[in-house]
Amino acid sequence: MKLEQSISEIGSICRKNNVYFHTDASQSFGKIPINVVDMNIDLLTASSQKIYGPKGAAILFIRNGVKIEPLLHGGGQEMNMRSSTENIPAIVGFGKATELCLAEMKKENKRLTKLRDRIIKTILKKIDNSYLNGHPKERISNNVNIRFSFIEGESILFMLDSFGVGISTASACSSPKLEPSHVLSAMGLKHEEAHGSIRISIGRMTKDKDVDYLLNVLPKAIEKIRLISPHKK
Amino acid sequence: MKLEQSISEIGSICRKNNVYFHTDASQSFGKIPINVVDMNIDLLTASSQKIYGPKGAAILFIRNGVKIEPLLHGGGQEMNMRSSTENIPAIVGFGKATELCLAEMKKENKRLTKLRDRIIKTILKKIDNSYLNGHPKERISNNVNIRFSFIEGESILFMLDSFGVGISTASACSSPKLEPSHVLSAMGLKHEEAHGSIRISIGRMTKDKDVDYLLNVLPKAIEKIRLISPHKK
Repeated sequence: MKLEQSISEIGSICRKNNVYFHTDASQSFGKIPINVVDMNIDLLTASSQKIYGPKGAAILFIRNGVKIEPLLHGGGQEMNMRSSTENIPAIVGFGKATELCLAEMKKENKRLTKLRDRIIKTILKKIDNSYLNGHPKERISNNVNIRFSFIEGESILFMLDSFGVGISTASACSSPKLEPSHVLSAMGLKHEEAHGSIRISIGRMTKDKDVDYLLNVLPKAIEKIRLISPHKK
Repeated sequence: MKLEQSISEIGSICRKNNVYFHTDASQSFGKIPINVVDMNIDLLTASSQKIYGPKGAAILFIRNGVKIEPLLHGGGQEMNMRSSTENIPAIVGFGKATELCLAEMKKENKRLTKLRDRIIKTILKKIDNSYLNGHPKERISNNVNIRFSFIEGESILFMLDSFGVGISTASACSSPKLEPSHVLSAMGLKHEEAHGSIRISIGRMTKDKDVDYLLNVLPKAIEKIRLISPHKK
């Protein structure tokens, strides 16, 4: 099962077949180098709040020559592409946040990759029937996505919350629904596997001692849940 | 020529004819009392930044039973009506800004109405060939819209800017276009009349002495422009 996605490859296939390629780079923008030319990207979106910028600003990169239809009509702002009074403070903040991310990207990626790999290694070792979702290395440095058999992600979320640790189950933008992550499903996970998955995000504010704490409480939480879980055989 | 618009009347006509009535209340929300029931309003929009709130938040009132189609699709936020991560800081700020406006509405309206009427009265008296656009009383307390014969609004804008006074010509949301305000045109003004119109906005930060200053420099500015204007007969 090939779990990772190569943006350049997808872009190249699209380009050859004369299909526009849009990538939602919300999770990678500011975290890994992106080159829209090399990667054959026609359209790219990214969000300010995902890189510690203020809410209320985002970008849509449109490759020269790509024609798109605006969704919002009205005052004709932003070359008719997005009518609405521009949110200048958020735009400026987004610019500064981008600058800061680019400046520290290399160093921060190294630091987060180390933390991430420690989290993955320790969980897989310490907790029985735990599995990593996605590629061990070909993944973004701030993301850990793990599944546990016989339990539900939501129970882990609530249990960890009582320990003061915030994680998530599905993708944030679909969390009000009870459906498991459609991404995990598309990656080939069975319904109960996707449901038993959690996403641990680390970032600029995550210190070594936070990871120590997580790795201390998570095995206890899983053990506790499995004791009362009806799914356990 | 009837220049004012009665929202209640329009609403009542729409209701009788089974037509949905949407009003853009950006300029009135927080400034004058609005009762969506009494005014037969089905849909109403208002903006945070128009009432000293942060940019990035707005409201759409939808009367119970009115069905509308969302423009943005995706994560299903805000009951599927506007997919997009909610801008919580801006929403909270908008709420607070609304609270402040409601608390001071009566007092502030009185103060602004006095300033507004002084501006209108003085301009019409001091400057030849100046005319008020719209109703003398049935207008919002922060708005003065005046036209001057033989000159263009844009010249007045630039001239006043050199005196440190900011005004506008067309409606802000269409200012990048060279077209005169479509509202003034719809109100029956000829092309050159709409072009010779300016909008003076006052507000929470406008003090008596600011109005004194404006009323001192504006006649000089108009005189200067008319001296060199090619439109003057």
